[in-house]
Amino acid sequence: LINASRKDVREKIGTKNIDAVAGLASAQYQAGADYIDVNAGVFGDKEPEFLKWLVQTVQEAVDLPCCIDSPNPKAIEAALEVHSGPALINSVSLEKGRMEEVVPLLNRGESHHVVALCMSDEGMPETTEQRLAIADKLIGRLTENDITVDRIHVDPLVQPISTQGNFGIEFLNAVSAIMKNHEGIHTICGLSNISFGLPARRYLNRTFGIMAVANGLDGAIVDPTDKQLMGALITAETLAGKDDFCANYLKAYRNKLLS
Amino acid sequence: LINASRKDVREKIGTKNIDAVAGLASAQYQAGADYIDVNAGVFGDKEPEFLKWLVQTVQEAVDLPCCIDSPNPKAIEAALEVHSGPALINSVSLEKGRMEEVVPLLNRGESHHVVALCMSDEGMPETTEQRLAIADKLIGRLTENDITVDRIHVDPLVQPISTQGNFGIEFLNAVSAIMKNHEGIHTICGLSNISFGLPARRYLNRTFGIMAVANGLDGAIVDPTDKQLMGALITAETLAGKDDFCANYLKAYRNKLLS
Repeated sequence: LINASRKDVREKIGTKNIDAVAGLASAQYQAGADYIDVNAGVFGDKEPEFLKWLVQTVQEAVDLPCCIDSPNPKAIEAALEVHSGPALINSVSLEKGRMEEVVPLLNRGESHHVVALCMSDEGMPETTEQRLAIADKLIGRLTENDITVDRIHVDPLVQPISTQGNFGIEFLNAVSAIMKNHEGIHTICGLSNISFGLPARRYLNRTFGIMAVANGLDGAIVDPTDKQLMGALITAETLAGKDDFCANYLKAYRNKLLS
Repeated sequence: LINASRKDVREKIGTKNIDAVAGLASAQYQAGADYIDVNAGVFGDKEPEFLKWLVQTVQEAVDLPCCIDSPNPKAIEAALEVHSGPALINSVSLEKGRMEEVVPLLNRGESHHVVALCMSDEGMPETTEQRLAIADKLIGRLTENDITVDRIHVDPLVQPISTQGNFGIEFLNAVSAIMKNHEGIHTICGLSNISFGLPARRYLNRTFGIMAVANGLDGAIVDPTDKQLMGALITAETLAGKDDFCANYLKAYRNKLLS
């Protein structure tokens, strides 16, 4: 939500409106977010300055780590200078240069976590096998650099089923294989690409999120204030055996998230 | 829906109310059912007579096969005497006697399909491994008797997560393993047991259905006139790559099933 590519948020970040940004952070904290995503990519040369300000503003408002959402090593470095505790860096990939510049930052000061995008200079993968091949290389490179698997969140990249009908199942099979082949690793994704070009997108995104949890996905980049989506993901985790005594499910029921 | 254990339906079957039963069949046909389940178990000695009447009444009303829902070989035999085309027999299991009496009926006249319950004289399985062991024996016994895998619908048996938190995931893993280990086989289940003892049961059942489809489930015993459930299952199949050009999804959208 704290992403300067959203028009209304851009203005709030551009004017360094502390109350507005803190409000967005608090709402996500209340809704159960584990990290607060911050993105200042649209500011070009000034991205490091604004990203740093975002981290400070968010962490003064809530007791949560940030997801530093930038491919720019200079911006990541500036943000980490002020970040308290281990952050989640989004992201590295196999694209030329991405790994070399970011990896040294991941062990600086704290043991930061990292999103590893299944993307290479050959473009976006389409099949399960292409995703697995890239994931294996990414994980190999990161672990060689002392980033242990529990700090790696692989994003197999969701692509729209309107483009190709099997793009959903290829992604789901990749999640399940990555989780099986690399014990202790995490998987993460955004959901909204799946529904591009189709009606009832939020419904489709939510249903795909449930299916991804059924295949082992344990992270997602979402709007945690979307009650229907959060209700769906919490319920899926309960059904996947990740909710002792159904406590989270019962809480979601009481909070009227289940519809 | 055409199950005499439901109080209002029992009376309609008991009085041989053709319009009422035909109406229940038509509604399911309109809603996209592949088989119409018929159950007259509560009538004891008269089960064969009533089951036969149900099959005749349903097949006069709609052009669909029946799911003959009875453990009683005499009732199944009576129903098959009047059934047109291959039926789905629900069910056989590893319980003493169940297999021997029903198997000969499956190749009589037509190549009938069968639901194979993962149940043995040792009771209901709890783990994935227990389900797989029973499924392997069931499939072995059926294929020895010339029932090919494409006619076998294995039901791994859903058990309530309120009893044990991992009952959902053990079931889901069993579905995925059975589909992988026996190419061409089908899996089927009822969904409602999963939510026993918890609030928002229809929501929980629906979410579990989506997760089961994500793991390869290709059949379910449901109320097809439940729009939210059907919308969820159709969407899950679309996302699982089983819906060319998203045609079923778009139809479900137009029919307002997606909520």
